[in-house]
Amino acid sequence: MTETAFVPRCADFDTRVRSSFDRQAMMRSMGAVLDEVLPGHVSISMPYAAEFTQQHGFLHGGAVASVLDSACGYAGFSLMDAESAVLTVEFKINFVAPAQGQRFRFAADVIKPGRTLILTEGRAHALAEDGSARLIATMTATLMAVRDRGIAG
Amino acid sequence: MTETAFVPRCADFDTRVRSSFDRQAMMRSMGAVLDEVLPGHVSISMPYAAEFTQQHGFLHGGAVASVLDSACGYAGFSLMDAESAVLTVEFKINFVAPAQGQRFRFAADVIKPGRTLILTEGRAHALAEDGSARLIATMTATLMAVRDRGIAG
Amino acid sequence: MTETAFVPRCADFDTRVRSSFDRQAMMRSMGAVLDEVLPGHVSISMPYAAEFTQQHGFLHGGAVASVLDSACGYAGFSLMDAESAVLTVEFKINFVAPAQGQRFRFAADVIKPGRTLILTEGRAHALAEDGSARLIATMTATLMAVRDRGIAG
Amino acid sequence: MTETAFVPRCADFDTRVRSSFDRQAMMRSMGAVLDEVLPGHVSISMPYAAEFTQQHGFLHGGAVASVLDSACGYAGFSLMDAESAVLTVEFKINFVAPAQGQRFRFAADVIKPGRTLILTEGRAHALAEDGSARLIATMTATLMAVRDRGIAG
Repeated sequence: MTETAFVPRCADFDTRVRSSFDRQAMMRSMGAVLDEVLPGHVSISMPYAAEFTQQHGFLHGGAVASVLDSACGYAGFSLMDAESAVLTVEFKINFVAPAQGQRFRFAADVIKPGRTLILTEGRAHALAEDGSARLIATMTATLMAVRDRGIAG
Repeated sequence: MTETAFVPRCADFDTRVRSSFDRQAMMRSMGAVLDEVLPGHVSISMPYAAEFTQQHGFLHGGAVASVLDSACGYAGFSLMDAESAVLTVEFKINFVAPAQGQRFRFAADVIKPGRTLILTEGRAHALAEDGSARLIATMTATLMAVRDRGIAG
Repeated sequence: MTETAFVPRCADFDTRVRSSFDRQAMMRSMGAVLDEVLPGHVSISMPYAAEFTQQHGFLHGGAVASVLDSACGYAGFSLMDAESAVLTVEFKINFVAPAQGQRFRFAADVIKPGRTLILTEGRAHALAEDGSARLIATMTATLMAVRDRGIAG
Repeated sequence: MTETAFVPRCADFDTRVRSSFDRQAMMRSMGAVLDEVLPGHVSISMPYAAEFTQQHGFLHGGAVASVLDSACGYAGFSLMDAESAVLTVEFKINFVAPAQGQRFRFAADVIKPGRTLILTEGRAHALAEDGSARLIATMTATLMAVRDRGIAG
């Protein structure tokens, strides 16, 4: 889905991403786990959680969006230099099926890395007991590398 | 911001919206409270919550998106007929300032009500101790009125 | 719809916007005219044009998007400093009614002006012979002020 | 990029798509040519056209969006039944590089086909004289299959 292979600007990109993710209290509150970190790619998973459902008992669209936002953010952050913090400028999410399942997987890829703005794309899947995966949502997110604001990570 | 005043299709739209909102476990988990329900307009508020922050200690963008999604959804649902359940087709959110504050307010309005699809718009503000409000995010969301799927509300 | 009144960074913002608009060959090809230029606000209009229709004889959604994109871009550019050129980072458009009419009006406002990124919002209306206006599309667009790239305006 | 292979609901999907495209006056005005039509996939190309440029001489973002919108629309229409017309509900476009080149290619794929709503994704590339392609924009578009409104195609 990406145009090229990406070269990280920091040798310790994996540590930087994991340590920043660990500081996201919301991901912890939701039971989200950071599975894969590659240059320009991140995947996160979480179990079904009754505390984060909407009125029909499916995972809330906002919960799906929250984890996809983090996945997109860290896919972008994995390519940033050591002086940059990552902020989300905007994202758009399309919901294509109810978030029903035992577990959910959220994967994100950098589409276009720029020095200031980075375009990313994410996909969320519901995983059934038999291991099958069903697409539930897609996201595009624009990230910004922010420097010199007294924040890092 | 809306084109016209809206006439609800259900006399008990207020009850229907509040009872559906009460079934959204995620809103309860986040401490979100449904403040206003008018035909085509809803507002929700929540306090700062350390469990729903991102890596810099601001409210997570996904948390902001989650409550705005609910606000948009219920603004639309307030105009639906008694046979309809509401689902979010897609939303887009732009973040314009960090979600820093004591409390947050999320307001949503219907822009265009259709029989099947409804376009809504939401704004999130951070409220400071002195009562001042700062815009932190804007959303547009497309909702779908779903009938005959065995779900309601 | 805007949070505050805007102060332009250039005294000659009106001239700068109009001169840049005049260089947009596409707007000329479509018969689009720049009507209003205020700090943070622009409106453009165009007549129905059979050359820019889709398969049902309505104005093509892309034509509507093109003029709204220009309106949003110049609303943002009206607030930029003299060294900046404007580029569109992304936009999202929702179509709420067919683009049928004698004439179309496209208005855009800055929602949040930043030094680098500017968030804008646009609305397109179809104008009937009796002067009534019908909302046909809404847009949110993120603009970037680009400096030092050898382009201006 | 797609989840599954798609089975068209009409045996003559190719003819239906091409005949509807031929009625899009805007595509003709822009010199756009429909290259590929497969179930759930369409590609269109057009040459650089000075009449559709913005103020810096690049192809206007709205021109890029217009052709991507048509590509997404026809990727979706290729899977619709014989009674359906296609309308765009919304699209979002991210611009990642200036639209500079000799020729441009616009490809779109269905991500999720529903009976009423179809999610699609498009990519625009600028083609240089040496044949190399550079990504300039990505789109996600939601389409609606409209029946019984007295329009077809």
